[in-house]
Amino acid sequence: MKISFIGSGNVATHLATALNKMSGVSILQIISKDKSHAKNLAMQVKADYSDELSRLKTNFDILIFAVSDDALEEIVTQIEIPDNRILVHTAGSVPSTIFENVTRKFGVIYPLQTFSKSKSIDWKEIPIFLTASDESTEKRLSHIAKHLSRNNQVISDNQRFAIHIAAVFASNFANAAMTISQQICEENDLDFALLHPLINETFAKALRNGPKHSQTGPAKRGDTTVMNKHLEFLQNKPVEKEIYEIVSSFISNRYANDRS
Amino acid sequence: MKISFIGSGNVATHLATALNKMSGVSILQIISKDKSHAKNLAMQVKADYSDELSRLKTNFDILIFAVSDDALEEIVTQIEIPDNRILVHTAGSVPSTIFENVTRKFGVIYPLQTFSKSKSIDWKEIPIFLTASDESTEKRLSHIAKHLSRNNQVISDNQRFAIHIAAVFASNFANAAMTISQQICEENDLDFALLHPLINETFAKALRNGPKHSQTGPAKRGDTTVMNKHLEFLQNKPVEKEIYEIVSSFISNRYANDRS
Repeated sequence: MKISFIGSGNVATHLATALNKMSGVSILQIISKDKSHAKNLAMQVKADYSDELSRLKTNFDILIFAVSDDALEEIVTQIEIPDNRILVHTAGSVPSTIFENVTRKFGVIYPLQTFSKSKSIDWKEIPIFLTASDESTEKRLSHIAKHLSRNNQVISDNQRFAIHIAAVFASNFANAAMTISQQICEENDLDFALLHPLINETFAKALRNGPKHSQTGPAKRGDTTVMNKHLEFLQNKPVEKEIYEIVSSFISNRYANDRS
Repeated sequence: MKISFIGSGNVATHLATALNKMSGVSILQIISKDKSHAKNLAMQVKADYSDELSRLKTNFDILIFAVSDDALEEIVTQIEIPDNRILVHTAGSVPSTIFENVTRKFGVIYPLQTFSKSKSIDWKEIPIFLTASDESTEKRLSHIAKHLSRNNQVISDNQRFAIHIAAVFASNFANAAMTISQQICEENDLDFALLHPLINETFAKALRNGPKHSQTGPAKRGDTTVMNKHLEFLQNKPVEKEIYEIVSSFISNRYANDRS
């Protein structure tokens, strides 16, 4: 099975190097507008490379688009391929049907993890979500996914989109909350490491009992005295103050019945 | 050293049972408006109990107020004690000076952890922050704190207040973000457990490299195409949508320079 890639970023790198180890699979070509990245990855997986889409070799079985969600739509319109080739992308927010007008066989391989290019990752633990245009395509993508991870399943385009948004809240926004926390510590000569035990327990608890059953704090208690003091403290940080207000009202409303 | 408690909640329970094991320390009395809680805790630490503040025995050396931040202010005004007794509270958002008009010796013992009454906790890992009115009081509180945890230090009232707010963001608000994530998963027939590996890596990364250097996602990339699609998805959830908008703009502004 010959697999080519468009893109040479974190996802492309982790996917290509992992698939390259799969028996019966060879990486054919890496296409990326960043020529040095393309070359670098191509050498790791013994593939050809180019920085021009026009140089795409069309004798692949599967072409994986591992580019940013918004770059994807633009690139797809420029693709012309023979029949019976499978087009796949890795974008959470783009429906598989974006390939509809280019081929009859298409799908999505969506690994749910925050990739850092440097750090090697344990694929076996990463959930992989598949979407496919038809049964035979689903079979082929499942074959790949099962090689990568024991934790994979078929979902719809809508479900993948929902997971993508859920991941923004649980990962990106939780990290942003910790960033504000780190900022406040540093502005008050406090080592953020002092909060590590609290943060560890917060996440352990949320994964153990579910976040819905792990909420604590002044907003949950409806403790307006404390919340108003906090807002006063934040008065010179308008954005952080607004975040405090809206997240607190989300929590406060959610647990209002537990209090009354 | 005789220690009495006002309050019988999570913090009172964890503190009293831990201090009761300390040689040279005896728990004298538990006062709590919830008589059954008071009795329950009193039996665990072999102390007297009452649900009336007027029954407070004044032959304690240290009286620890472990009540909610806003209940504290009201109770303190009702306290009358002989000289040379030490009054202590455990509230993050209340200055130690709340005791100024009641005694010359006072302080705060602030353990930074999210306590669940049931789950026993490993005190040794919990940071304990001390504030004291004078050196001799600081010595006595440090003596107690060192017995509870290897991780304790003296801070000012202002620093404790900053830590309290930092903890709301890192713990309460991060949990709220995960709660919204769980909600979105359930509304789309997706098991929230699918996000556990992502959440684990998110927090491991934030503690390893600091959240400031761990941010990812569409807001960091300034990917407005994706963000607008997400906002459309959230259009029937006004509060979640507002949280998405304000947190995204915080992230987007913060990393604007990395992009340009």
